[in-house]
Amino acid sequence: MEQKEVWLPSLITPTPQEGFELAIKLSRMGVKSTQPDMEVLKRLRKDYANDASGLTAASQVIAINFQTISAANNYWK
Amino acid sequence: MEQKEVWLPSLITPTPQEGFELAIKLSRMGVKSTQPDMEVLKRLRKDYANDASGLTAASQVIAINFQTISAANNYWK
Amino acid sequence: MEQKEVWLPSLITPTPQEGFELAIKLSRMGVKSTQPDMEVLKRLRKDYANDASGLTAASQVIAINFQTISAANNYWK
Amino acid sequence: MEQKEVWLPSLITPTPQEGFELAIKLSRMGVKSTQPDMEVLKRLRKDYANDASGLTAASQVIAINFQTISAANNYWK
Amino acid sequence: MEQKEVWLPSLITPTPQEGFELAIKLSRMGVKSTQPDMEVLKRLRKDYANDASGLTAASQVIAINFQTISAANNYWK
Amino acid sequence: MEQKEVWLPSLITPTPQEGFELAIKLSRMGVKSTQPDMEVLKRLRKDYANDASGLTAASQVIAINFQTISAANNYWK
Repeated sequence: MEQKEVWLPSLITPTPQEGFELAIKLSRMGVKSTQPDMEVLKRLRKDYANDASGLTAASQVIAINFQTISAANNYWK
Repeated sequence: MEQKEVWLPSLITPTPQEGFELAIKLSRMGVKSTQPDMEVLKRLRKDYANDASGLTAASQVIAINFQTISAANNYWK
Repeated sequence: MEQKEVWLPSLITPTPQEGFELAIKLSRMGVKSTQPDMEVLKRLRKDYANDASGLTAASQVIAINFQTISAANNYWK
Repeated sequence: MEQKEVWLPSLITPTPQEGFELAIKLSRMGVKSTQPDMEVLKRLRKDYANDASGLTAASQVIAINFQTISAANNYWK
Repeated sequence: MEQKEVWLPSLITPTPQEGFELAIKLSRMGVKSTQPDMEVLKRLRKDYANDASGLTAASQVIAINFQTISAANNYWK
Repeated sequence: MEQKEVWLPSLITPTPQEGFELAIKLSRMGVKSTQPDMEVLKRLRKDYANDASGLTAASQVIAINFQTISAANNYWK
């Protein structure tokens, strides 16, 4: 059986900033799970990366994932 | 009485990555429950899978479902 | 006084799958409470059911309601 | 000092269905607080009430408010 | 150092209705923090205040902020 | 190894208002993590800062991040 790459071993991170980076990774993996073709994703990048509503929408997905990661890490308290 | 297929026996998964995969499944089942016709869904795939805002929106639904699955699994702590 | 139909006696369901079905029902009742005219809803169905962003948006509402139902059922643990 | 109408005395409701109705009320008050002119709201109604994405968006606001009301009522358990 | 105006001393309010009003204030401050120019905001008001999807989107931001305020006030129980 | 700038040392803030400012910062960092080019961001600013739906969407991302920060600070109680 093909061994799947382990890209999400844990939700726990040492710092809030690394938690925010994990939230970015989760958001991008959500896109990649829907469109695995990296060529297509590179082509689309110029669409959302140069569009105000696209950037705000991307920031919102990161915010939702960061909410999850923050709760998982008990807000690094 | 027609026996329904059991596709969601539990929210509990061994690892965060399998939790993320379950969140993807929940998101797709949300689409399928609204549009059961697989032919239509295949036809529509090229719309959202090649559209930046469509991909971001799909990632957001996964993020919301992943928030639910993570809480269900007590963040795999 | 006109007796209202009781369509939401409880948030508790025996299984996660029935919880997901209740989340779908809540999402549809949210639409019906805004537009009670079933003829209009039938006419509109072809709009969102054949539109990628419409289907993703519908799945998102189900995801939010499923988050509520899952918490209500303590994630069926 | 002008006495404000008390329209939200409590988040507690006897049943989940009344909780859902309160979520609808909160959603509508959110609209009214932004646009108090009922004539404008009546005129706009035909826009969103006959538009699939408008109805889905309205259902989503109800879902978020219902999440709040459900937690307030400890899911009527 | 320029003394900042304290507009958010606390999340605690005596009643749910005042909590809803604080949620409206938070939503508007979110807009103002992005666009501080009141003249621009007044000009834009006619856009969203006369647009069904704009009003629904505004109600959704209020719903998210009200969820935060309600939890902060332990649902005024 | 290039030393990363620490911009998010903690989620804890002395006051709710500083919590709201941190939520604004998180929202902007979500945009910057997607589009690091400040020149592009400055150019796009006039798009969303003069667009009602853009401003509402920005306020919504702040609301989601503020929900996270508020929970992290136990609502400054």
